[in-house]
Amino acid sequence: MKLYSFWRSLASFRVRIALNLKGVAYELVPVDIDRRQHRGEAYAALNPQMALPSLELEDGTVLTQSLAILDYLDEVFPAPALLPADAKGRARVRALAAMIACDAHPLTTPRVQRYLTEVLHVDDRARTAWLRHWAAEMIVAVEAQLAGHAATGRFCHGDAPTTADICLAGHVTFALNQGLDLASAPTLRRVFEAAMVTPAFASAHPLAQPDAPDELRRRPVAP
Amino acid sequence: MKLYSFWRSLASFRVRIALNLKGVAYELVPVDIDRRQHRGEAYAALNPQMALPSLELEDGTVLTQSLAILDYLDEVFPAPALLPADAKGRARVRALAAMIACDAHPLTTPRVQRYLTEVLHVDDRARTAWLRHWAAEMIVAVEAQLAGHAATGRFCHGDAPTTADICLAGHVTFALNQGLDLASAPTLRRVFEAAMVTPAFASAHPLAQPDAPDELRRRPVAP
Repeated sequence: MKLYSFWRSLASFRVRIALNLKGVAYELVPVDIDRRQHRGEAYAALNPQMALPSLELEDGTVLTQSLAILDYLDEVFPAPALLPADAKGRARVRALAAMIACDAHPLTTPRVQRYLTEVLHVDDRARTAWLRHWAAEMIVAVEAQLAGHAATGRFCHGDAPTTADICLAGHVTFALNQGLDLASAPTLRRVFEAAMVTPAFASAHPLAQPDAPDELRRRPVAP
Repeated sequence: MKLYSFWRSLASFRVRIALNLKGVAYELVPVDIDRRQHRGEAYAALNPQMALPSLELEDGTVLTQSLAILDYLDEVFPAPALLPADAKGRARVRALAAMIACDAHPLTTPRVQRYLTEVLHVDDRARTAWLRHWAAEMIVAVEAQLAGHAATGRFCHGDAPTTADICLAGHVTFALNQGLDLASAPTLRRVFEAAMVTPAFASAHPLAQPDAPDELRRRPVAP
């Protein structure tokens, strides 16, 4: 399968982690958002929403939307599972994932930043404050769900990574890049650190991608 | 079970539709966002994210995040199914749902509108333009996924409502309230109209809720 991905895209980061966790081989096809390649005819034909990532299956089916792709991968490659075995546990993991993927991440995407700058004429300082505000709000909210909850383990839910950790990895990476610290969120920080030393997460990191700028790119980590 | 809901909340609307489709009886507990009841101590103890809806199960477990609740309901009350039987079909439905619930809806929520007004000092005209922009963008994107796709039927995917139609119902209701028309999205309009004449959708409509303002409220529709 082919993953259309951009090194800095947090939604692409999620799918890279899941593919690594499942041990599924894939061809990475970089799509450069900064150069607006996602708005070009070739990519729009593949994914009319012109958003990243897209996962093209062997039969040509194109899957879109990272959360939908994670569920698909979990159904087709069941081990290791990205969701707990019980319905209430799955609901908790999915809620944590949705808090990040629905309620926080979309507010910080390039299209929204562009609207702030180009239409609302928001200056750089206010744009950065916007990004930090939504990133910080979600760190507080996720910490409140993790801290002291009986199901929180080494990871968000138990001792193996789930969809919640996959979403958390991207969110915290973004928050740290925005200069936030995690002092008020010790549980979230501990879980994030446990995730990021896992090879499947580390090798999916934006700065480990072949399309990351040379001056930023880390030495690849074996998955 | 108890559904903590606000009449105008589109995420609450989703869960009301799903409960109606499944024929699951529930007690509606209105939480008035306009009066900031969701930020009060009682609700924050239930749902630390202070977002709507929350679904409290008989054993006291509180489920949050509408998409996670829809998946839970579909697992615990499997008929009628909210997702297709095949993995690729499920991925398509989940992607349509995520386009709306992740990429559009969060941009139009009260907390974001409040930030625009109170922090960025955006005036009413520009705030309305913001809401219409994201609502319209998603109508175009969803129409592109529905029109001409072999799996699109009377509803978004086949001839029975799925999670995609549930999300679409709220999005289009919001868009119409913002004065958008659906002239450029004939497939989406047809699907939306099919959904809204279905009793499970009609009786979940914001204006059919007991906590809707008297002057707006419709006569209840039997589910």
